[in-house]
Amino acid sequence: MAENLEPLERLTDMFRKLDGVGKKSAARYAFCVLNFTDEEAAEFARAIIAAKTEIRRCAVCQNITTDELCSVCASDARDHGTVCVVEDPRAVLAIEKTRQYGGVYHVLHGTISPMRGVTPDKLTIRELLARVSPRSDAPDSSPSQSAEGSEEEAGTGAEPVREVILATNPTVEGEATAMYIAKLLSPLGVKVTRIANGVPVGGDLEYADAVTLRRAMEGRYDLL
Amino acid sequence: MAENLEPLERLTDMFRKLDGVGKKSAARYAFCVLNFTDEEAAEFARAIIAAKTEIRRCAVCQNITTDELCSVCASDARDHGTVCVVEDPRAVLAIEKTRQYGGVYHVLHGTISPMRGVTPDKLTIRELLARVSPRSDAPDSSPSQSAEGSEEEAGTGAEPVREVILATNPTVEGEATAMYIAKLLSPLGVKVTRIANGVPVGGDLEYADAVTLRRAMEGRYDLL
Repeated sequence: MAENLEPLERLTDMFRKLDGVGKKSAARYAFCVLNFTDEEAAEFARAIIAAKTEIRRCAVCQNITTDELCSVCASDARDHGTVCVVEDPRAVLAIEKTRQYGGVYHVLHGTISPMRGVTPDKLTIRELLARVSPRSDAPDSSPSQSAEGSEEEAGTGAEPVREVILATNPTVEGEATAMYIAKLLSPLGVKVTRIANGVPVGGDLEYADAVTLRRAMEGRYDLL
Repeated sequence: MAENLEPLERLTDMFRKLDGVGKKSAARYAFCVLNFTDEEAAEFARAIIAAKTEIRRCAVCQNITTDELCSVCASDARDHGTVCVVEDPRAVLAIEKTRQYGGVYHVLHGTISPMRGVTPDKLTIRELLARVSPRSDAPDSSPSQSAEGSEEEAGTGAEPVREVILATNPTVEGEATAMYIAKLLSPLGVKVTRIANGVPVGGDLEYADAVTLRRAMEGRYDLL
């Protein structure tokens, strides 16, 4: 009976495409939209289209931006010789919030995941290699489509890259992606580092998992 | 720095208007939209507009529908003399799923909540009273705007209403709304009932709260 209002079903299906939204939440959101004013609904629809059309990727670091270059890459105040590699734009926001990092970024837009069909060539690894070795002799992540795309980015970085900080998430996929990139970077003579694992500040040892604790012990540093 | 991409902020703000969506979820959803294809984004935008324009309220029960009457009100197989009063269309779906209820509905589209500025006249209580006493001598929920609106609905129900089941949620606001409506219905000589409270089937007494347990005890019934 009353279940199959087609416009509502269609809207629910769209909400389900969002990360972490299940059937019940999607239906709840769709009902919320019904309670929007016409103006709000129109604004929502416009906001979706605007976000898609106005936001693109920075020509250098692949972070999202409304301009040719993102504000970090366009800044003279940043150290363009240090590149922090992250999975997505949200990681950039998180690191920027600390106000401690003065280098630039490289956004992979994902992690390598054969299970989900994400092969290295679907990420921006090729662009990263082009940034690190701007003499255009960069080994490519996807041998099949090697030539294209590397010249453009190579021209932008005047300062040579000295250090690449691999800051993918400490998950299985994030670790594997970091290892994969490290291997590709190793012949290029650049310093490659990985962010530290350990007990989160403010956390409780009791609730830390065994792997985190082991890493925290391994990564212990001298106090005196 | 990179935080203030205006189109992304605007889209995040729209997602925050959805029930139960906080700052972090809204940002996550907005980022998801960026990963949509252009076609998906366009479809999403269209779905929002379509839901708002194509879905309206049933002339009798106020449930959402794409036609003049909802499928329940339009059905000859339903008992139009029994009206189940619910807070929102989702409650109708939940009850319909049981396939046990043969009557019709009345959707209030909310509960009385002076705190949130929801006064009785913002709900469809007036339309409910008009259905129950179709002789158009219905006492009105909002005395200030009494005359208008009651004639239309009065004409639709050929069968007189015998029972009104108040099935608002067992929350403070739902209970208060049920009591308010019961008081308005009492002079109309119609049977007024309230759905039972108790321990949910499959639940565990250990996890039931004290009020629920007390209600379950009070509502106990003879087995032998």
